[in-house]
Amino acid sequence: MAPPPIDLNADLGEGFGPYRIGDDAAMLGIVTSANIACGFHAGDPEVLFATLTAARAAGVTPGAHPGFADRAHFGRRLLPTTEAEVERMVAYQVGAAAGVAALAGHPLAYVKAHGALYNLAAVDDGVARAIARAVRAVDPGLWCLVLAGSRAAGLAEALGLSVAHEVFADRAYLPDGTLVPRDRPGSVLHDAGAIAARIGAFLRDGAMTAIDSSRIAMPVHSICVHGDTPGAVAIAQAVRAAVLAGGAVLAPFARR
Amino acid sequence: MAPPPIDLNADLGEGFGPYRIGDDAAMLGIVTSANIACGFHAGDPEVLFATLTAARAAGVTPGAHPGFADRAHFGRRLLPTTEAEVERMVAYQVGAAAGVAALAGHPLAYVKAHGALYNLAAVDDGVARAIARAVRAVDPGLWCLVLAGSRAAGLAEALGLSVAHEVFADRAYLPDGTLVPRDRPGSVLHDAGAIAARIGAFLRDGAMTAIDSSRIAMPVHSICVHGDTPGAVAIAQAVRAAVLAGGAVLAPFARR
Amino acid sequence: MAPPPIDLNADLGEGFGPYRIGDDAAMLGIVTSANIACGFHAGDPEVLFATLTAARAAGVTPGAHPGFADRAHFGRRLLPTTEAEVERMVAYQVGAAAGVAALAGHPLAYVKAHGALYNLAAVDDGVARAIARAVRAVDPGLWCLVLAGSRAAGLAEALGLSVAHEVFADRAYLPDGTLVPRDRPGSVLHDAGAIAARIGAFLRDGAMTAIDSSRIAMPVHSICVHGDTPGAVAIAQAVRAAVLAGGAVLAPFARR
Amino acid sequence: MAPPPIDLNADLGEGFGPYRIGDDAAMLGIVTSANIACGFHAGDPEVLFATLTAARAAGVTPGAHPGFADRAHFGRRLLPTTEAEVERMVAYQVGAAAGVAALAGHPLAYVKAHGALYNLAAVDDGVARAIARAVRAVDPGLWCLVLAGSRAAGLAEALGLSVAHEVFADRAYLPDGTLVPRDRPGSVLHDAGAIAARIGAFLRDGAMTAIDSSRIAMPVHSICVHGDTPGAVAIAQAVRAAVLAGGAVLAPFARR
Repeated sequence: MAPPPIDLNADLGEGFGPYRIGDDAAMLGIVTSANIACGFHAGDPEVLFATLTAARAAGVTPGAHPGFADRAHFGRRLLPTTEAEVERMVAYQVGAAAGVAALAGHPLAYVKAHGALYNLAAVDDGVARAIARAVRAVDPGLWCLVLAGSRAAGLAEALGLSVAHEVFADRAYLPDGTLVPRDRPGSVLHDAGAIAARIGAFLRDGAMTAIDSSRIAMPVHSICVHGDTPGAVAIAQAVRAAVLAGGAVLAPFARR
Repeated sequence: MAPPPIDLNADLGEGFGPYRIGDDAAMLGIVTSANIACGFHAGDPEVLFATLTAARAAGVTPGAHPGFADRAHFGRRLLPTTEAEVERMVAYQVGAAAGVAALAGHPLAYVKAHGALYNLAAVDDGVARAIARAVRAVDPGLWCLVLAGSRAAGLAEALGLSVAHEVFADRAYLPDGTLVPRDRPGSVLHDAGAIAARIGAFLRDGAMTAIDSSRIAMPVHSICVHGDTPGAVAIAQAVRAAVLAGGAVLAPFARR
Repeated sequence: MAPPPIDLNADLGEGFGPYRIGDDAAMLGIVTSANIACGFHAGDPEVLFATLTAARAAGVTPGAHPGFADRAHFGRRLLPTTEAEVERMVAYQVGAAAGVAALAGHPLAYVKAHGALYNLAAVDDGVARAIARAVRAVDPGLWCLVLAGSRAAGLAEALGLSVAHEVFADRAYLPDGTLVPRDRPGSVLHDAGAIAARIGAFLRDGAMTAIDSSRIAMPVHSICVHGDTPGAVAIAQAVRAAVLAGGAVLAPFARR
Repeated sequence: MAPPPIDLNADLGEGFGPYRIGDDAAMLGIVTSANIACGFHAGDPEVLFATLTAARAAGVTPGAHPGFADRAHFGRRLLPTTEAEVERMVAYQVGAAAGVAALAGHPLAYVKAHGALYNLAAVDDGVARAIARAVRAVDPGLWCLVLAGSRAAGLAEALGLSVAHEVFADRAYLPDGTLVPRDRPGSVLHDAGAIAARIGAFLRDGAMTAIDSSRIAMPVHSICVHGDTPGAVAIAQAVRAAVLAGGAVLAPFARR
């Protein structure tokens, strides 16, 4: 029996004004879904439109990628924020991205939170629910892309949303299935061969190797690769090759 | 025969963070439509949500009020901007406001450009079309509220959008039907009685008295009153009373 | 023997673009020192210049009032920030305010941190030292205005800076001499008579009554009054009257 | 007789938060003066401090590089701004950069306006004077670096400031000695050999070849090279080699 299809996603459109991060053009040739910054942690109307237009041309499925309003720290700081504020800022950002996506003729299919907001949602039920409520209000047909196995998945499903689980190709895991924080040694893997091998093993076994060598079973619909680290494109290509070598078909998780 | 219904609109939700402008609560008891700032010239997700929630409670129809990204000058400076940039920034802002409106359970019914963008659209066909294209892309059911008699009306209608014409209760007109710029003497009227009398005469005759005493025939579906000038609430009440005294019914122009 | 002179300080210049907070003109007739926002939590070059010019005309001594870059929350959220970042952002803000003060012909005499940065400095020695290092680098003749009795005083003095201690007229104190956080009941006092009586008693006894009725001895060179709360001007006038009734002379603490 | 010394200057520190533009490390090995962004069109306290620290280590003289508050367009749009606003925003930015420079132990020696503000000052006497007034107020020992032969030079000198004239290695000139605007064809030269040859000829003859092949005599103390165009580093090295080949000594124009 053939393995289920697998999606590859990456954060794209993270420039602002004259600034760019990562090689979006190369990544659009590798991934099947693009998490596009909405103008709070990165992105602006021009970058959003250009990224959505390029994703459309490349046949890559777009998702909104809302984050904290913190350009100077790229949405990676945990800012003190109430659940009500999360709900409103996610509705604003998803709506804004949906508006530009309509203009680009490439409608959004899903939402994935960014950076510190993503990490918070993986461990804080109230925040996970606030995000899901905002997504449902703006468009109940949008999927939520969440940390594989996290409580956020069930919370979004309880609100009637479709949910996809993702694993991170180049991030180390703690034994509880959460990511090793970026400020700790070993949190980000850099060797393309080792990354591809780990993903290949995971797809065969359904269990991820954590930083203490323990094994964590987790569901998976999508694999996140990064576009902004050294060697990012080569790593993403190696992950793609490993998925295909395992016999899986690459396809977006979100179908509308 | 009864006169056609008339709408009263005002700019609301023009605060930001800890700041507020105008007495929104009082204005929501007077107007029938609220132009709500979208976060570029004023407003933010919290102010948007609070204003939409209050408008819902007051039975006031909400519209998006996009402007230039220029908080420091309240969207009143003409910033060098291409038509393509206008299209994208309007799609972003209308989408964002629509997202928060969905969360507040009070969907947007129309779009009215703000400040320098509004004035530009009244005289620049390319900009007027860019705004209309953005509105149509985000939601073709949204009305456009434009300067009464301006070319922007026909341009939006040509794209299939519903259009409403508005006159300004407290702004002086040039003989060509455009507004006297704010930096010229006499551009803004301040006497509530004179303002109400001018509107009463206009509703009877269908012609507005310009700054040189010439008379300009113009269509009207809505009258704009301001919430942020000295005596704003008293002026708005006087205008409302003048409309009712003329026998017209007050009702939102946009019906979805 | 006459009591030592007392300074009255308030946060001023907290507007931004079209926005204003508090009645700065009235407060400049009451206080002897003005903590002027530097453009990060509030303020901008125009507001800075106008406030410095008005302070000069009123004979009020100006100080820089740096805070977190968080306009949307008025600098009141504790943002994750390294000591090195604090040092650089304080040097930037104090330098900027000094530049505009030079243009206004009214040089800065002191620095007081704002909001969450102030509260953090009162309990975090590393942050208190970072602020003091930045002040010393920009201008070692600037005084530091700090929470009366806090460790920040000694840390700044150890770097060779002159230090003034301040008490808050309208804020409740915990028994350890820190302020009751703003989100707790009773943190802010609102009754002008009670506030004035508390300050009068403090000036007589040298001890402040805490929220649990315990008494805390604290040094004082300045009393902080607020300009942005309901009844602020009346409260500030009552505090001023209480100081004068106690026989003290009102005078700026910082002499250059 | 030896030719007078020549300075090479470039715009550096034009990053923001996670973003970087150009290869600052390479450019610091080539130039003798660095125009450092002050946080309005680009830059922030962290980038400012890092750039000043690196300039100090490289023995490169730092200058403040103030511009319009327009990150999204990198200070290249002409924003409607009064002379008074220019004065205040330049005082703010120069003061801020001076504050961070003090912290980095590498004091500013000069000021050069950026982008649209620079171009405006070259043709608008009121704006040129406003910039000079702000510089003089903040620190009358700062030099002004201006377009060679422009009226801005005499206006700054009339206020008692020291002035240096600069030519642009890679920008085409109009016959009146102003730069060909960036949106016109041929405005920016890209061939390192041709650029170096043009500068070599200019240093021999004292006259620059304009876009219509006419020759414009202009004084020169500094040559501006860019760090953010394709091949920027190679071009800057070629210009440096051409200066040295002509027998000139490379040295900062500003000596304090």
